[in-house]
Amino acid sequence: MKKGISASKGYAIGKVVVKMKTEISIEKRHIDDVIQEKERFQKALELSKSQLEKIKAKAEKEVGKDKAEVFESHIMLLDDVEFAGAVTVKIVNDHVNAESALYDIVDLYMKTFQAMEDEYMRERGADIKDVGSRILANLTGNNSSIIDMENNTVVVAHDLTPSDTAQLDKSKVIAFVTDIGGRTSHSAIMARTLEIPAVVGLNDITDSVKDGDLIIVDGVEGEVIINPDKNTLNTYKIKKENYNKEREKLKALIDVETFTKYGNRVEVFGNIGKPEDVDQVLKNGGEGIGLFRTEFLYMDRDSMPGEEEQFNAYKTVVEKMGKRPVIIRTLDIGGDKKLSYLPVPEEMNPFLGYRAIRLCLDRTDIFKVQLRALLRASVFGNLRIMFPMISSLEEFLKAKEILKECMDELTKEGKSFNKDLQTGIMVEIPAAAVNSDELAKYVDFFSIGTNDLIQYTLAADRMNEKVAYIYNPMHPAVLKLIKMTIEAAHKQGKICGMCGEMAGDENAVETLVEYGLDEFSMSASSILKAKELIMKK
Amino acid sequence: MKKGISASKGYAIGKVVVKMKTEISIEKRHIDDVIQEKERFQKALELSKSQLEKIKAKAEKEVGKDKAEVFESHIMLLDDVEFAGAVTVKIVNDHVNAESALYDIVDLYMKTFQAMEDEYMRERGADIKDVGSRILANLTGNNSSIIDMENNTVVVAHDLTPSDTAQLDKSKVIAFVTDIGGRTSHSAIMARTLEIPAVVGLNDITDSVKDGDLIIVDGVEGEVIINPDKNTLNTYKIKKENYNKEREKLKALIDVETFTKYGNRVEVFGNIGKPEDVDQVLKNGGEGIGLFRTEFLYMDRDSMPGEEEQFNAYKTVVEKMGKRPVIIRTLDIGGDKKLSYLPVPEEMNPFLGYRAIRLCLDRTDIFKVQLRALLRASVFGNLRIMFPMISSLEEFLKAKEILKECMDELTKEGKSFNKDLQTGIMVEIPAAAVNSDELAKYVDFFSIGTNDLIQYTLAADRMNEKVAYIYNPMHPAVLKLIKMTIEAAHKQGKICGMCGEMAGDENAVETLVEYGLDEFSMSASSILKAKELIMKK
Repeated sequence: MKKGISASKGYAIGKVVVKMKTEISIEKRHIDDVIQEKERFQKALELSKSQLEKIKAKAEKEVGKDKAEVFESHIMLLDDVEFAGAVTVKIVNDHVNAESALYDIVDLYMKTFQAMEDEYMRERGADIKDVGSRILANLTGNNSSIIDMENNTVVVAHDLTPSDTAQLDKSKVIAFVTDIGGRTSHSAIMARTLEIPAVVGLNDITDSVKDGDLIIVDGVEGEVIINPDKNTLNTYKIKKENYNKEREKLKALIDVETFTKYGNRVEVFGNIGKPEDVDQVLKNGGEGIGLFRTEFLYMDRDSMPGEEEQFNAYKTVVEKMGKRPVIIRTLDIGGDKKLSYLPVPEEMNPFLGYRAIRLCLDRTDIFKVQLRALLRASVFGNLRIMFPMISSLEEFLKAKEILKECMDELTKEGKSFNKDLQTGIMVEIPAAAVNSDELAKYVDFFSIGTNDLIQYTLAADRMNEKVAYIYNPMHPAVLKLIKMTIEAAHKQGKICGMCGEMAGDENAVETLVEYGLDEFSMSASSILKAKELIMKK
Repeated sequence: MKKGISASKGYAIGKVVVKMKTEISIEKRHIDDVIQEKERFQKALELSKSQLEKIKAKAEKEVGKDKAEVFESHIMLLDDVEFAGAVTVKIVNDHVNAESALYDIVDLYMKTFQAMEDEYMRERGADIKDVGSRILANLTGNNSSIIDMENNTVVVAHDLTPSDTAQLDKSKVIAFVTDIGGRTSHSAIMARTLEIPAVVGLNDITDSVKDGDLIIVDGVEGEVIINPDKNTLNTYKIKKENYNKEREKLKALIDVETFTKYGNRVEVFGNIGKPEDVDQVLKNGGEGIGLFRTEFLYMDRDSMPGEEEQFNAYKTVVEKMGKRPVIIRTLDIGGDKKLSYLPVPEEMNPFLGYRAIRLCLDRTDIFKVQLRALLRASVFGNLRIMFPMISSLEEFLKAKEILKECMDELTKEGKSFNKDLQTGIMVEIPAAAVNSDELAKYVDFFSIGTNDLIQYTLAADRMNEKVAYIYNPMHPAVLKLIKMTIEAAHKQGKICGMCGEMAGDENAVETLVEYGLDEFSMSASSILKAKELIMKK
């Protein structure tokens, strides 16, 4: 038995097909004719692009337009003059071969992504690597072929790139198992889309199996068993059957409204990062959006998104959600989440620094563009605005004042918006939780952001492996602050939700229901299970 | 009127003597005969040392042994093989003149100190600069002369180094005023020792005055007034008189026990960083030591201080304090306070990282040396142990377990210690304050560390100027946590003290007395005023 990270739940029993890591070794060579070398690189770029167009078309058919979008971003990278330019400049200036120049630039891009705090952005480094490998293969003529496979195939790989998965025959694959990767790596996301189990981060699984081995993939515990004995096999056959029954049962909850055993109505919402993510929330019975992280509109680009672009993104989300509530969090950037076009000074402790509402209240020029876009989108559905990192009443009132300014501007311009739009705050700084009885008088709703709240309450950076053990959602002080916040909201007749990871944590749901939490917001894939747990309680 | 930083309170009215900044310009020259150059450097070192021995003797007579110790540390730097070695290696390897090599090494040392979080350590960079300037002057023959001065002289300087102040005729100087420096710069410390007012950080005061100008130094508001009109002069004469009367009144409180208006006995303690600091605490009527920061034993050296050395330091302090309580905080190092001989991985958010008790519970080899030394010193006075950065009961119990191990060892070795020694915790992480009712059952005392508590509660790094405005001791959430902690301690019949800057903050004392805080610990110079404020309340 080998233990890894559960990336997609479920059980699978099947035959191994190992997709070997094809490491191309790169030699740095001196090139005299740099013009010719530039052309060689250009050809490899073009070939890569035409391959990706085909893969994209295939993926759109197989897994839908959303998931195929990753290839659009790959194509965009090929078209990115900065990227191609960096490689050609390197070829010309250093008189090196295209392979070596490409390798260095890809490495630089990857390191930039991997240094980011946000797990999602970190994993995007893998996309760069994937595109880089494709160009490299086209430069060297080392094109990897599509793997032939039988029914009930478990793909075992060092890592699965978007291109790899696009080339798999999905009707025959029943699970993914990889050496590296985390819960937001491409293979993990793809497995959850295909609704097949996946275990990632197994370190050396590719060395431990061979083609044709029988393998059990336990996506619930994050384990795999190679060539199991008969008893184990039978145990897992039963587990698999029960799991599938359970899933069917959960699917029955998609359109069910959630009530606790105390008879209280509780809403189960989904967290999203992009407009496209709405589909997955709806598919899993999400009754609203509890957190739309708008950072993604701002990242991975050269300039601030304008009012029109933002308006369209917000409008898309609220329209898709119909009458269901959509809580949109204003920009939470700064500190370690950096924007190339918004330089901020280096900070010794970015988590305790200039970010989120602090940055927005300071840079009202940026803040107002977003607030105007949100206001204009508010007439198309049930949009609510949420301010992050609020530490005092003053900050909330100042934010509201700026919102009022935007309202006045729009009124003058004859543009419509919802005058009664709800505004709330993230309770993620200990001061906000401790002082929630005062804040509750002024806000329309709270949403407890547990990731930061836990981090600050325990003074432990959960990304720091030396102290991550201190980070504990069930710490009595954390639970007290949560209880305090919920009670403060209720005392003023306000709603209290939660949009941190804890809201989807099966071990925490019972406690949160007891405390009277009104709304749970979590990743789409956790919604149905949470509904079931809440209804049981 | 010019506004600076108040570094030592009081009023002075006198004549300006400007001590000009003597900038020696350094040229980098190629040196063929590096052996001769090394000798030249060696001679300058020796000359500097003999000068410093004389200055030290003079200072010992004038300001006492404690304050003269700064020159001992200067002499130690001259004797430090690493420092002198670095310069000579640079001369030999780079074939450069001694002045240039010295300048580079001094610069390197200064940058290292100035990058430190701790203000006290940052200011020690000034010591290095002072010694460097002396050697440089001896290399170039540019020795600065002693300034002649009349009675009632106000010394105005860019900065005052320890050597500068040592050479002043202190019977004639009534105030210091400088362009640069903070509350812990040498001139500030010296002014407080001499009990004369000082205003530092005035930026360009040396350009704004000339010798013989009449100047008012307002060390209370941190202001100076140059050539005042008659009315202003009279106003300040009255202020000065009142201030001096007030001081005399405060001095009467030195041996008075402090009671609040509610009739509660409150103890006023001092914070110290070194054994020598005890004298200043006693001189100002401190009834105990509320915080002995033991980091200073570990810093500025090449290896861990041994048990014997630590034992002697702790013994000195408890003996000097007699029956008065001495609360010694175990090592609070790690994160940004680094030790050269204890490498820790780089952290993205050191304030939320591997430090203090986290490091000690992980490195019990280091922790036990300190605990053994503390236990052995406990028989010489009223020693109490305090653990920093406690976030959970588990951590405190684990620390106690290790203390118990040390006790068992000492018992076996036949060494004596106080078996009933009190152990308490710093309440400086929000979780500890929120969970204080539980923790109070197990500890002997609490001491609220407001600097960190405020920082974490508001998620704002007070060293980060972009968010320092958020750091507010009177934030309602901070006050609630403090109240909660005091009440939790009292419910269990335990003592609750405070050793952050807030304990000496005149604006906070009334509130803290109302909350029932049992013990206030602060810098020595704030003790008498705090006693008076507490008794009024």
